[in-house]
Amino acid sequence: MTGTQIFEQYESEVRSYCRSFPTVFTRAKGARIWDEAGKEYLDFFAGAGALNYGHNPDNLKRALVDYLLDDQITHSLDMHTQAKAQLIETMQDVILKPRNMNYKTMFTGPTGTNAVESALKLARKVKQRQNVVYFTNGFHGMTLGSLSVTGNAMKRNGAGVSLSNTTAMPFCGYYDNEVDTIQVLERFLADSSSGLDHPAAFIVETVQAEGGVNAASLTWLKKLSDLAKAHDILLIIDDIQVGCGRTGSFFSFEGSGIEPDMICLSKSLSAYGTPMALVLIKPELDQWQPGEHNGTFRGHNLAFVTARQAMLDFWRDDHLSKSVRHKSQLAQQILQGFKTQLEGEEIVARVKGRGLILGLAFEDASLPGKIAAACYERGLIIETAGPQDEVLKLLPSLTITEAELMQGLRIIAEALTAVTGCTIATPEAQLQLASV
Amino acid sequence: MTGTQIFEQYESEVRSYCRSFPTVFTRAKGARIWDEAGKEYLDFFAGAGALNYGHNPDNLKRALVDYLLDDQITHSLDMHTQAKAQLIETMQDVILKPRNMNYKTMFTGPTGTNAVESALKLARKVKQRQNVVYFTNGFHGMTLGSLSVTGNAMKRNGAGVSLSNTTAMPFCGYYDNEVDTIQVLERFLADSSSGLDHPAAFIVETVQAEGGVNAASLTWLKKLSDLAKAHDILLIIDDIQVGCGRTGSFFSFEGSGIEPDMICLSKSLSAYGTPMALVLIKPELDQWQPGEHNGTFRGHNLAFVTARQAMLDFWRDDHLSKSVRHKSQLAQQILQGFKTQLEGEEIVARVKGRGLILGLAFEDASLPGKIAAACYERGLIIETAGPQDEVLKLLPSLTITEAELMQGLRIIAEALTAVTGCTIATPEAQLQLASV
Amino acid sequence: MTGTQIFEQYESEVRSYCRSFPTVFTRAKGARIWDEAGKEYLDFFAGAGALNYGHNPDNLKRALVDYLLDDQITHSLDMHTQAKAQLIETMQDVILKPRNMNYKTMFTGPTGTNAVESALKLARKVKQRQNVVYFTNGFHGMTLGSLSVTGNAMKRNGAGVSLSNTTAMPFCGYYDNEVDTIQVLERFLADSSSGLDHPAAFIVETVQAEGGVNAASLTWLKKLSDLAKAHDILLIIDDIQVGCGRTGSFFSFEGSGIEPDMICLSKSLSAYGTPMALVLIKPELDQWQPGEHNGTFRGHNLAFVTARQAMLDFWRDDHLSKSVRHKSQLAQQILQGFKTQLEGEEIVARVKGRGLILGLAFEDASLPGKIAAACYERGLIIETAGPQDEVLKLLPSLTITEAELMQGLRIIAEALTAVTGCTIATPEAQLQLASV
Amino acid sequence: MTGTQIFEQYESEVRSYCRSFPTVFTRAKGARIWDEAGKEYLDFFAGAGALNYGHNPDNLKRALVDYLLDDQITHSLDMHTQAKAQLIETMQDVILKPRNMNYKTMFTGPTGTNAVESALKLARKVKQRQNVVYFTNGFHGMTLGSLSVTGNAMKRNGAGVSLSNTTAMPFCGYYDNEVDTIQVLERFLADSSSGLDHPAAFIVETVQAEGGVNAASLTWLKKLSDLAKAHDILLIIDDIQVGCGRTGSFFSFEGSGIEPDMICLSKSLSAYGTPMALVLIKPELDQWQPGEHNGTFRGHNLAFVTARQAMLDFWRDDHLSKSVRHKSQLAQQILQGFKTQLEGEEIVARVKGRGLILGLAFEDASLPGKIAAACYERGLIIETAGPQDEVLKLLPSLTITEAELMQGLRIIAEALTAVTGCTIATPEAQLQLASV
Repeated sequence: MTGTQIFEQYESEVRSYCRSFPTVFTRAKGARIWDEAGKEYLDFFAGAGALNYGHNPDNLKRALVDYLLDDQITHSLDMHTQAKAQLIETMQDVILKPRNMNYKTMFTGPTGTNAVESALKLARKVKQRQNVVYFTNGFHGMTLGSLSVTGNAMKRNGAGVSLSNTTAMPFCGYYDNEVDTIQVLERFLADSSSGLDHPAAFIVETVQAEGGVNAASLTWLKKLSDLAKAHDILLIIDDIQVGCGRTGSFFSFEGSGIEPDMICLSKSLSAYGTPMALVLIKPELDQWQPGEHNGTFRGHNLAFVTARQAMLDFWRDDHLSKSVRHKSQLAQQILQGFKTQLEGEEIVARVKGRGLILGLAFEDASLPGKIAAACYERGLIIETAGPQDEVLKLLPSLTITEAELMQGLRIIAEALTAVTGCTIATPEAQLQLASV
Repeated sequence: MTGTQIFEQYESEVRSYCRSFPTVFTRAKGARIWDEAGKEYLDFFAGAGALNYGHNPDNLKRALVDYLLDDQITHSLDMHTQAKAQLIETMQDVILKPRNMNYKTMFTGPTGTNAVESALKLARKVKQRQNVVYFTNGFHGMTLGSLSVTGNAMKRNGAGVSLSNTTAMPFCGYYDNEVDTIQVLERFLADSSSGLDHPAAFIVETVQAEGGVNAASLTWLKKLSDLAKAHDILLIIDDIQVGCGRTGSFFSFEGSGIEPDMICLSKSLSAYGTPMALVLIKPELDQWQPGEHNGTFRGHNLAFVTARQAMLDFWRDDHLSKSVRHKSQLAQQILQGFKTQLEGEEIVARVKGRGLILGLAFEDASLPGKIAAACYERGLIIETAGPQDEVLKLLPSLTITEAELMQGLRIIAEALTAVTGCTIATPEAQLQLASV
Repeated sequence: MTGTQIFEQYESEVRSYCRSFPTVFTRAKGARIWDEAGKEYLDFFAGAGALNYGHNPDNLKRALVDYLLDDQITHSLDMHTQAKAQLIETMQDVILKPRNMNYKTMFTGPTGTNAVESALKLARKVKQRQNVVYFTNGFHGMTLGSLSVTGNAMKRNGAGVSLSNTTAMPFCGYYDNEVDTIQVLERFLADSSSGLDHPAAFIVETVQAEGGVNAASLTWLKKLSDLAKAHDILLIIDDIQVGCGRTGSFFSFEGSGIEPDMICLSKSLSAYGTPMALVLIKPELDQWQPGEHNGTFRGHNLAFVTARQAMLDFWRDDHLSKSVRHKSQLAQQILQGFKTQLEGEEIVARVKGRGLILGLAFEDASLPGKIAAACYERGLIIETAGPQDEVLKLLPSLTITEAELMQGLRIIAEALTAVTGCTIATPEAQLQLASV
Repeated sequence: MTGTQIFEQYESEVRSYCRSFPTVFTRAKGARIWDEAGKEYLDFFAGAGALNYGHNPDNLKRALVDYLLDDQITHSLDMHTQAKAQLIETMQDVILKPRNMNYKTMFTGPTGTNAVESALKLARKVKQRQNVVYFTNGFHGMTLGSLSVTGNAMKRNGAGVSLSNTTAMPFCGYYDNEVDTIQVLERFLADSSSGLDHPAAFIVETVQAEGGVNAASLTWLKKLSDLAKAHDILLIIDDIQVGCGRTGSFFSFEGSGIEPDMICLSKSLSAYGTPMALVLIKPELDQWQPGEHNGTFRGHNLAFVTARQAMLDFWRDDHLSKSVRHKSQLAQQILQGFKTQLEGEEIVARVKGRGLILGLAFEDASLPGKIAAACYERGLIIETAGPQDEVLKLLPSLTITEAELMQGLRIIAEALTAVTGCTIATPEAQLQLASV
């Protein structure tokens, strides 16, 4: 039986991405991935944000293999291990203290949804209220608690029960510039007869990835934080997808001036694609009873080892940050060029995003799927996002080289040309046009 | 700062087991674990059931390190990889087909709770009903959906919201022999005015581990399964803690004659203590839409590699099964001896469990905690279970040697003597007494 | 258009009893009712228990008409009126103080369901818990809160949403004598891992009318009350259908030795078939904020006038109580006779109930509907009850004469004969047989 | 014991209005009411809208007393009676057909909340969806279902459980003119990832009475209705408080061009202050099973008799409608005069409402309570409304004479003068000023 046949016969129909990329992958390194036929692909998807440092980075691999060969602790529940002590200390020293951030670390089960569920529980416990406000097009996970703060109707309906104790409010820019979404929310909060049960917390992504690469402005975030403070509401930042450097800084909200009450991290946290998650909690909110939340794999030490190594190797200086910002600017210029050319042919598009999560949104929602398929044929792994898959989402690893980035954009240009019929110039040509 | 200080200052108060075992562990192998002071411990806890094959088993380690060094795929979401194809195929060939079991595999997020949440979703979707019946003292996980089928009040209250769409019914033996718990449930199901909303599914552990090492009889399981069939209800077996060989067979329900509609596996599934989970689904129930459930780490290939290797090395013959049954019998005889001696001193105790999940339950619920602490001092890691921690729970790795098992039981005997004041004879002496 | 045509064309399909009694009624007095064709019916249904004192009793009518003619206050919300002051005082003097009962009166909206919803709210507020335990086959009303403590699946499904924060437990006799239902409940309460969220209250009918004329024994009620006290749970008696004298005493639980925390009254409370309801509350539990519950028609003074008059005329001595007990005994003897004769012909039946709520339950659930229809043809209004309508329910007014009671039973005997083919002797003959 | 002492000792603390009007009332006629001391009050509260035709109107009283004296049917559950047939027919002939309205009538329990619960159930059943959208500051009743579509936090919290399956959206004018509230709602509906579970229905009052006398514009209602149609959502108009002529037409939405799917009526429906409620249902939506909703007092024939008489006497011509509009215009002119004079003294106020539900809203929310108290001292019964009781609410009977209306307004002018210190001219003077 071939690999593909095995999947078709024995794997559940729930499988999804493999339908867009119907091959069997075998090997990967950095921004490149190979299938069993030996075909090479450039990866602009990066494990949906779990591979910010690329596939199998050598520095982390070395630390991991050494640890394994030495028979150090692999699995420890929440018992103390050396690897965990070193991770906590490094996180304080390299990440938190330099940013003047004072947080305690909660190791939840090793998935993003587990971090979100933990944060929701703690917020409700601390505030003794049930309701939590989330935002339109938000995505926070697939277990029942996280799903109840997720916007997507298909995913919500999958719950099979009605989702309660949460309220959706409009995200930044939800009505373009016609409605001030902070004002919409503020009135509900200030009016004791609005029907909005006073929430324990707001939970929000600073850039909604699944929701369509919607970046909240730093001003909006600050206003939201002020609103939370004014109404005694906790602010939970879900930085699972866009934290760990995705927007150019370790935390996505740096520069906004906010101090979240809790921060959820996962995906690229382990830095090697292995499962790990945690919640950073302001010390005064750490009101857990021992064991009130738990999980078998919350002590995944292999992930602790690579997570720590990544902090040491990538976050002790601003080299990576600068590189992300530079590549972001480059890609945005080129995407703007694409957009301009497309609009010349009456195809309405928009460039979205921040750092290295960028999107090209199309008015015609049928296009991105076709473009992604055309990219795949040309050796580029890229996905769509948004409620109607109306956004072509660029999510390369942060460590991608400029040349690889240009190569990927070149494939996109070719795919755009093939799908839309417009002649889209190469990235290099776009840069020249922009610099004129 | 010492390791312990780091945890006290920076880790959330939610940490729990480390309070029973207050040292920093560094290295582990098989049934043994060492701390930073070099002290050796025998491990009768085995990662709460996640380390059935012991710590860092060499056969699996080799496969894992080779895979890493070769830069094969680490993280793949639900894209096809060679490692995954091989795992699925091996599972069919080694585990399922020899048992005449026809199931499709759903890769959920890599934690047990994610598998449970997936099974609940699917059951509700297939049956178009909301309610799910679970059982007293059941434990199925800590995210909102799983928590709603978990009995423990402290953990339920942690949700901060009321848990709905589920109903608890009495587990096998809940009223000792005074009430037929199947009859209690059957009447509720048969009566359309009972107030029990007709459930989509039953979810049950065959041996409740957290709940106090309560083993359902195989007869009870069969009756439950018959009841499910008669009333068009799905049967979900949560084999997360007691599957993967814990009771002596790969699945815990082998021999009962039941064919569950879904089976949740995790914990020892990866065989190396790394996060992995899946749900086995009868093909006709696989009614998922693509992507209706998902999770970033559902393609944790490192775990696939070791999971497969364990199937190849431990489950192609009945060597391990026989060894588990032998060691179980041995341990039970010795525990019965302890019980008899304790009762001679008017300390009421009871031996519980099946396979290598065994318990010594005490009428005086304050004893097991003290006994576990006395074991720890003597170099044995062991935990308690049950609603009032009234059970001393023996959960060694399945690959523990007979000598190690005897050593652990000897420490327990010493601890019993120290805590209760009764003179408890050695395991060897107990066996002799039993054979008289 | 005839009356019947009007209903068929313009009234909602939700109408129900009119389908069993398809005529248009015009006039009624005592235990008799006439239709537009002038046909006379004997009434063994009594407004589903709302007409304990018969139709349009003259003493109450006089008080009501005088009040109306005098232009006294009809509608007052919860403002003070003379009629309300007099009712409250009379209730204290005639009903409560003679029974050594110390309760405050809450005027809810004028329907039973409103009283139940109020009691549930207050119990949850006082105990700061969400869950409420109700009992299999219980019926407490059709608004969302009351429905969530009602057993019937068809009615529950009508909610269109899942009903939460309540748990059904087995009622007295639910497993005949095979299972001690108090024991079933007690274990759930005593075990903190049972999955039963600790309830704020029990809500229970002493005789389940809709549920099939199931009478709880006074011993069971006392045990339930003791259980409530032992576990800090409030006991709410829903005496809406079987209070106001139905079982022979004003409250149905008299003689059991219990002191409910709250008592819901409605149906026959106004004594004239007009809407009225209230909750009696132990003074220390009256922790309402002003206006925390309300309702436009909670000040229905016309009902207050007749309610008070009924207390004065029927409850200052034990004349009515004795008469109810006498007629109950008589009817039970005759029903036992019917049962004996039916069983001679292999039709299994059972006599159920207490006071003047009596039932003849059939193993063959198709019979009671046919018998009730045969009664209707013969001029007797009678209904069925129970989850499968397996009970023929006798619910005559309490003021029915002995002759009328015998007449009704005679019609039942004829209907039994006609439907079952067994020759059932007359009531008079049954009494003679019994006295032999 | 005096009446007041009886209430203080024996009535629940939940009583509310009696605290504003602390006397014992004995007699009432038209717009006037007397207490036990013989003091006369003018009534601008009209039973919170339940006494649109005044207290004890002679024409209805006559019909009611005749019916009683004739021993016609008082209580009938949902069996057919002559009184009910006549009511249904008259409603079709006098109210519905002349307005080209095709609806079936569902008799619910006799309270507004019962009508609302019924409408919610049916909407969810027909659409097979759980969610219902309601509006900020809406009030629909106090049982659990109705409460879940009510905005007021104090009342919501009284539930003691979290309220689910409903979503609040901003009512007309919620952001003054700054935000288009229809646009806010439309975006949520159109976006499948908004987090708004697609609703079965909208439920809305055209003028929010309790919520602060907020009148939706007819344009807004039409847009809302169009939105409902476009998204396959049912529109339920809760006309309990402002139907039955309160705004000048029988239904409050006449003139807007909408055709609601369901209409809830109660309060003044019986026309005599006696309990009665119904839901008008478009025939194709009448998908109830028999008995799927019920209630003991849904056949309150005494109310049917007066309800029918009121239709015959008040709604066969447009006399009452014209009179309401005239008196509304008069009162609004005078209130505008008050407002103008208050603002001259820097007290910010606003005139709100439609027909004979009018409000004077104050920026300083402490004023209306004081003004209402000052009115009461001067012999006028008047209440406040709004989330902070910031509105003085004028709700006289529709049949009030012009002279009585002017008298009441004169008392308000005096109370305004007394409370604010501004000299407010008489109503007559205001009219002169306005006509200049």
